Amino acid sequence: MTRVPVRVRYSETDRMGVAYHAHYLVWFEMARTELMREAGCTYREVEDHDGILFPVIQVGARYLRSARYDEQLEVVARLTSVGRARVRFDYELRRVDGGAPLASGFTAHAAVGRDGRPTGIPAEVRRRLQSRESSE
Amino acid sequence: MTRVPVRVRYSETDRMGVAYHAHYLVWFEMARTELMREAGCTYREVEDHDGILFPVIQVGARYLRSARYDEQLEVVARLTSVGRARVRFDYELRRVDGGAPLASGFTAHAAVGRDGRPTGIPAEVRRRLQSRESSE
Amino acid sequence: MTRVPVRVRYSETDRMGVAYHAHYLVWFEMARTELMREAGCTYREVEDHDGILFPVIQVGARYLRSARYDEQLEVVARLTSVGRARVRFDYELRRVDGGAPLASGFTAHAAVGRDGRPTGIPAEVRRRLQSRESSE
Amino acid sequence: MTRVPVRVRYSETDRMGVAYHAHYLVWFEMARTELMREAGCTYREVEDHDGILFPVIQVGARYLRSARYDEQLEVVARLTSVGRARVRFDYELRRVDGGAPLASGFTAHAAVGRDGRPTGIPAEVRRRLQSRESSE
Repeated sequence: MTRVPVRVRYSETDRMGVAYHAHYLVWFEMARTELMREAGCTYREVEDHDGILFPVIQVGARYLRSARYDEQLEVVARLTSVGRARVRFDYELRRVDGGAPLASGFTAHAAVGRDGRPTGIPAEVRRRLQSRESSE
Repeated sequence: MTRVPVRVRYSETDRMGVAYHAHYLVWFEMARTELMREAGCTYREVEDHDGILFPVIQVGARYLRSARYDEQLEVVARLTSVGRARVRFDYELRRVDGGAPLASGFTAHAAVGRDGRPTGIPAEVRRRLQSRESSE
Repeated sequence: MTRVPVRVRYSETDRMGVAYHAHYLVWFEMARTELMREAGCTYREVEDHDGILFPVIQVGARYLRSARYDEQLEVVARLTSVGRARVRFDYELRRVDGGAPLASGFTAHAAVGRDGRPTGIPAEVRRRLQSRESSE
Repeated sequence: MTRVPVRVRYSETDRMGVAYHAHYLVWFEMARTELMREAGCTYREVEDHDGILFPVIQVGARYLRSARYDEQLEVVARLTSVGRARVRFDYELRRVDGGAPLASGFTAHAAVGRDGRPTGIPAEVRRRLQSRESSE
């Protein structure tokens, strides 16, 4: 489980006065980036050195409460599945000062090579990811 | 059913060389905006004159094929459910020159008033939306 | 001179209720992309086939009037300078139904190779761009 | 002078593999938000309680070196002018581990009321901002 702080930027608000829903996916990405760094497989290095990309193949999100400009939030990410060629992360968004979650979601990713073709996750990367796998 | 053209902007690509997944939600929004305009309830007017907002409460998307910079795409939106206080849209993203879909998805929305509280969809707005409702 | 229509997306608004200023740079980019396409040197091909990139090295913009959600605007782009290794575009943003400009701006670009190093603009690309050069 | 850390998000990169130029304006905004918070006039409160908005009326930026995905940067903001109805901020973007600046820029802002009309900066807000004014 990894917690990442996010402060809502002015650019992320919309005319409703709250954070626009697509930006939540960006915050989810920030959290899984840190989770992978903590697992010892920094995503940038996986792309640049191992030549493995993890494009999003599915996303789902539920928006429960609005996030407002300048609010200090945190995204909690968990790596809930590490397969031979796929991984899944689950997310929850909260205010840092507590209270009910603002949103929950997940992303599923397929491993592909630089040519865009599906590939297996290299053994070492997979082993590190599995060390961070959490049930739920 | 409403079709909206989208050309992939440079700003919408990422270092993988393809459109970043969160932007698909923006393209979905463009298509439902046009669908509502065609239904005679332009979203801007619904917000400004009726005081009804339709925040996204749930989103789901599957990414099947990459969209590349400068490609000419189209989003097909259908209004698949109009309830007393909720609506649901389904989307499909394709290249204009045909071929298999690049992505599919949906958004669910709750009607809320300017105070952010859930409310019913006004009868006239609901009637217009229902005129565009299509079965899945 | 090239005119490109832009409709303000919901995602481009902020809590002030108007288009967020950074998105104007994206609209400028859309207009220069079309200008280059009309000049016979589509930017995507220049990057992919000629291996020449034109990163922005300077930008300036003046914001005169607000752009609101769902408004139909147009960006007018002119290619005002084509040097040996640099180009400059000037922009004006207007509502399609006329009136005073909403914004004006410019971008300057340096030609670089895939390795990121400055390079000259290939003769054929330069010739085509010069055919569209307009005095200020 | 205020320093704000920024880590380049995947969503902020483009197909050139570097941070897209428009996002620099968002980073500038993050830095001036913190500067105003430190000055005791949190921008959110100035908007919500004083009813004063500071829309950007002019922006300029020079891009000197590329910023890459996942790099840890910092934006240094200075408040270089506080007038009766206008303020100006200057910015510099660097890598946290030192080296030459990646970019520099400025933004100019006009005070407007909730009705969008120009107004003077309230005396107390102005006094606080002036306490942070730094010569260029």
